[in-house]
Amino acid sequence: MTRTGTIYGVGLGPGAPDLMSVRADRIVRGARHIAYFHRSGRVGHARTIVEGLLHPEVSSIAMTYPVTTEIAVDTTDYNQALATFYDHTAAQLIALSQAGEDVVVLCEGDPLFYGSFMHLHVRVAPRARVEIVPGITGMSGCWTVIGEPVTWGDDVLTVIPGTLSESEIVRRLRDTDAAVIMKLGRNLPKVRAALSAAGLSDRAFYVERGTMPGETVMKLGDKADDMAPYFSMIIIHGHGRRPT
Amino acid sequence: MTRTGTIYGVGLGPGAPDLMSVRADRIVRGARHIAYFHRSGRVGHARTIVEGLLHPEVSSIAMTYPVTTEIAVDTTDYNQALATFYDHTAAQLIALSQAGEDVVVLCEGDPLFYGSFMHLHVRVAPRARVEIVPGITGMSGCWTVIGEPVTWGDDVLTVIPGTLSESEIVRRLRDTDAAVIMKLGRNLPKVRAALSAAGLSDRAFYVERGTMPGETVMKLGDKADDMAPYFSMIIIHGHGRRPT
Repeated sequence: MTRTGTIYGVGLGPGAPDLMSVRADRIVRGARHIAYFHRSGRVGHARTIVEGLLHPEVSSIAMTYPVTTEIAVDTTDYNQALATFYDHTAAQLIALSQAGEDVVVLCEGDPLFYGSFMHLHVRVAPRARVEIVPGITGMSGCWTVIGEPVTWGDDVLTVIPGTLSESEIVRRLRDTDAAVIMKLGRNLPKVRAALSAAGLSDRAFYVERGTMPGETVMKLGDKADDMAPYFSMIIIHGHGRRPT
Repeated sequence: MTRTGTIYGVGLGPGAPDLMSVRADRIVRGARHIAYFHRSGRVGHARTIVEGLLHPEVSSIAMTYPVTTEIAVDTTDYNQALATFYDHTAAQLIALSQAGEDVVVLCEGDPLFYGSFMHLHVRVAPRARVEIVPGITGMSGCWTVIGEPVTWGDDVLTVIPGTLSESEIVRRLRDTDAAVIMKLGRNLPKVRAALSAAGLSDRAFYVERGTMPGETVMKLGDKADDMAPYFSMIIIHGHGRRPT
């Protein structure tokens, strides 16, 4: 009987290759099959991070997102296109594992924290052996390159997707000690307005490509334009209880 | 002129030694001076994680917390004792760096996320070269060993210290998609009551020593006692928008 393979969901961390875990590094270097998400026409962060670590004979499954901006999100068409895509890629991974092959899914950041891997995970977990390796989140990478403690003592941290409505972001910002705003992209003007309404513009840091070449770290107020990649972030530091 | 040393704040991750980053592993193995926090009579998690990695001639600064439960927190005495302790240890690290020595402060999890290192950081950063290496947070370790995605799509994640009042925890739980409750310890009965009031008891997972030997993962409802170490955690998973 053929040995069944394992599907690994491996967190690669915030971007610098040496910020992946020792375990992830070992699994990636030993992989004979890798799979990674990317947008059409782009290599993808995950694949970029492991450049130079891969076995010369590794085989790759490039999982190309079927939709980008052509279809409006929140429509049935969008959800259906994505669901079909995840079904199809999950079936590929399951077939590999049933043939006795291990396959390593490369995941930016931490696989179970706002990651595309989760959509595969719910599909493959009932039918294959899955092993997940956590990673340093993108937000940890970002607050580290700013170089200031993000949460102290009894601080509450709220992680807010920039995709929420402006009023919802304002409400959340007014009711937290520390905040991370993810998924900026074209949401930046709205997020700026929310920060201003919450009186937090002066405390907001903007980080782009944190820990990677081309990294940008600045006070949001110093950022002249509203161009922001989807994976850029805003950090608001807490000032919680501390011995003085 | 003597070369000035660097004070490293190195995140060791959630507990399993191979979940520290490649960069942390390299810095820890190369260290000639390490420093770590611990409670009197205990080795401390941080020092335990690096067991077997250290240079045989490494010199250690064991930073022993001056207070545990003898003085009530939130009192002036408590804060003063801690502040004096941090002043003293920061001075030791600065003296080493001024003598040209690098020193590696071992930090559980991520140094800038609810860590004792932050109290040193604010004291040494104005007077010495500091380099911080992020780590996989304890909460990432905990949701990974549960094995379920914690945040999807537009989910809001709230990180709540178990030290907050019951009513405050209830309010926060009612207003979030996903939650992590940290710093359980003797706060567990209060946290249980808050989860019940928020109607979330059935969705709460309890994790103790996540990724480490002796790891415990269970539905909170299956936990018969209220014994919980300070570093145990409760996770409530989000169910955000996803293609179906």
